[in-house]
Amino acid sequence: MLGAAEKNEALLAMADRLVADADAILAANALDVEAAEGSISEVMIDRLRLDKKRIEGMSDGIRQVAALPDPVGRELDKVIRPSGIVVTKLSVPIGVVAIIYESRPNVTSDAAALCIKSGNVCVLRIGKEAYRSARAIVEAMRAGLACVGLDRDLINLVEDTSRQSASDIMTATGLVDLLIPRGGKGLIDACVQNAKVPCIQTGTGICHVYADAAADSKMALKIIENAKCSRPSVCNAMEVCLVNGGIAQSFLPELWQKLVAERPVNPVLFKLDERSYAILGGRENCVPAGEGDFDREFLDYVMAVKVVDSVQQAVEHIAVHSTGHSDCIVTEDEAAASYFVSAVDSAAVYVNASTRFTDGGEFGLGCEMGISTQKLHARGPMGLNELTSYKYVVRGEGQIR
Amino acid sequence: MLGAAEKNEALLAMADRLVADADAILAANALDVEAAEGSISEVMIDRLRLDKKRIEGMSDGIRQVAALPDPVGRELDKVIRPSGIVVTKLSVPIGVVAIIYESRPNVTSDAAALCIKSGNVCVLRIGKEAYRSARAIVEAMRAGLACVGLDRDLINLVEDTSRQSASDIMTATGLVDLLIPRGGKGLIDACVQNAKVPCIQTGTGICHVYADAAADSKMALKIIENAKCSRPSVCNAMEVCLVNGGIAQSFLPELWQKLVAERPVNPVLFKLDERSYAILGGRENCVPAGEGDFDREFLDYVMAVKVVDSVQQAVEHIAVHSTGHSDCIVTEDEAAASYFVSAVDSAAVYVNASTRFTDGGEFGLGCEMGISTQKLHARGPMGLNELTSYKYVVRGEGQIR
Repeated sequence: MLGAAEKNEALLAMADRLVADADAILAANALDVEAAEGSISEVMIDRLRLDKKRIEGMSDGIRQVAALPDPVGRELDKVIRPSGIVVTKLSVPIGVVAIIYESRPNVTSDAAALCIKSGNVCVLRIGKEAYRSARAIVEAMRAGLACVGLDRDLINLVEDTSRQSASDIMTATGLVDLLIPRGGKGLIDACVQNAKVPCIQTGTGICHVYADAAADSKMALKIIENAKCSRPSVCNAMEVCLVNGGIAQSFLPELWQKLVAERPVNPVLFKLDERSYAILGGRENCVPAGEGDFDREFLDYVMAVKVVDSVQQAVEHIAVHSTGHSDCIVTEDEAAASYFVSAVDSAAVYVNASTRFTDGGEFGLGCEMGISTQKLHARGPMGLNELTSYKYVVRGEGQIR
Repeated sequence: MLGAAEKNEALLAMADRLVADADAILAANALDVEAAEGSISEVMIDRLRLDKKRIEGMSDGIRQVAALPDPVGRELDKVIRPSGIVVTKLSVPIGVVAIIYESRPNVTSDAAALCIKSGNVCVLRIGKEAYRSARAIVEAMRAGLACVGLDRDLINLVEDTSRQSASDIMTATGLVDLLIPRGGKGLIDACVQNAKVPCIQTGTGICHVYADAAADSKMALKIIENAKCSRPSVCNAMEVCLVNGGIAQSFLPELWQKLVAERPVNPVLFKLDERSYAILGGRENCVPAGEGDFDREFLDYVMAVKVVDSVQQAVEHIAVHSTGHSDCIVTEDEAAASYFVSAVDSAAVYVNASTRFTDGGEFGLGCEMGISTQKLHARGPMGLNELTSYKYVVRGEGQIR
């Protein structure tokens, strides 16, 4: 097993090579961008496109991972049993971690760095639009590994970017110890349906903010605006706003004022249930909610709005419609807050703070491989510790049972 | 969510009812035993058969679970972030836990008790031979729940004992949060191949003991005898003995003496590789190993034996043939021990102690739902903590990102 010093030395060499090989990476990226233009959206092209500054950012990301504590070899527990055996629970690498992701070249270096730091071998499978970029990035990182005398094959890129290769990874029982799909609902669902290897669901977030009867309404407005508008394309953005009936009559017009009237650029489209439509109907950007609007990850300046009569009703709605990512209550009533925290079964449950904080860095994990919305192994932001398993080391002096 | 006091009260009521309803349980069990006689082995009949003492044992088991610390609501981590948000990582129940198991009625109460204590709803699916017994046990436990005012449906028994019902559970995405199969290789493999719900592989153990060149040979003999013979039908029993070539010439005859000559009852059958056959061939109970003998869970007084030339060779053999359950080195050489501990990728790695210690009770977990041989979520003995997930509770005062 690699020691902390070896791994960190490798990470720094990878970071150096990424910058040193920037021209080759940019040349490969230019080919990807050229080929993709016209066939994918401008937002996707923007995610795909690299420049020197982005490559430096990727390199800095690797250096930051190097600076984090080693997640391997942590003594999680140690007991001396009556028999005299000493049982130590030690964190260890998982083994081979496969990551299937879409056309974001920067995920290549992020994922590889986290795997190297956690002692895992990584198998990367990127979307076809970004393959040339990823290959150049991976070649630079592999050269970095070779520089410090490590095996280049600690980092692997799957050449085949067809659906078949994704399917092959999902069914590689005994070869892949963990599969992390990073992408949209289609990819996640395909993994749930087809994966025979252990898999962690990440990402889809239908996040709720509930403005309680006892909410500080200024705070609620600020949190909802931030949760919806600061970066609507990410999974921790709010999609559904629940408002207590006791405050709806005054609160909803204020919310409309803030998210529509005061936003000449990117005003929010309100999709309203019957009761909220009765209050806001007729105003600009206010439409009745359609079927499925409370079960949709808009990833845009759009939100569904519903009036509920109690924190219990809010929790019931969330139980049915949330993806278990991040849900928030805004309230000054501690009883309501406690109830919400205990009853909402999501990876992150908020009282009086924006759902946008659900992030490895923001939670103090230092980095992140994705956000798990499942309950086994890892839930919420997955940092380095979540990329490890453990084993029991038992030492005796001849004890038998 | 149920509090610790409520759960413990429920467990004690369940334990009481089990003893109070012993006659009904024994009557149901008699029907199961009568129906099974002739169609399953005597060993299986013995596992199936209940008597007052066994029911009292089951009842005591539930009481022991009640006495353990509550695994829910543990504060696993708490940080105040620079933004001022307080991020607390709290243990929570997983949700609905399904257990598919074979015809051992006692697993019914064990599994139900662990689920109640960990705040989970359980769905039990037992093999058809033991269904009537399980139904009587479950009815008693549900009556116990009702006694203390809790919902009987916290404990559920699947009526249909056909293959179809197992398959339905494996594919109940969104309804079953965790599936734990407890049984033989066929069941585990079926789950790996077919399960779409999160699943923990348990049980199959091809465990190795390696007697190193620097082994205390008396200790090695004692550990091998215990690991092989104390209870060969369980998963932590040894199946393969590796012996260093430097000591094989003297050690193997001693081993044969202890496990064959000195055991008039249940002598061990040695299945020998070429080099060990060259030493022991011709003796009673010594045969050449056949194809697959190093990949077989004998679960009997049988073991495969192989001579290796170094701890590295032992580790290489284990890497290919072990199921990752429990593997042991016997040595006085600390360098060999450290290497073995670091290089063997199994749930439990032993130095100078019997593999038979791999057990929730022996490791100090207080109880056990099974032994995981996978690396995600839980590895090795699964106690109450392993039946929980966690969530992040984030409290702020209006923070936005």
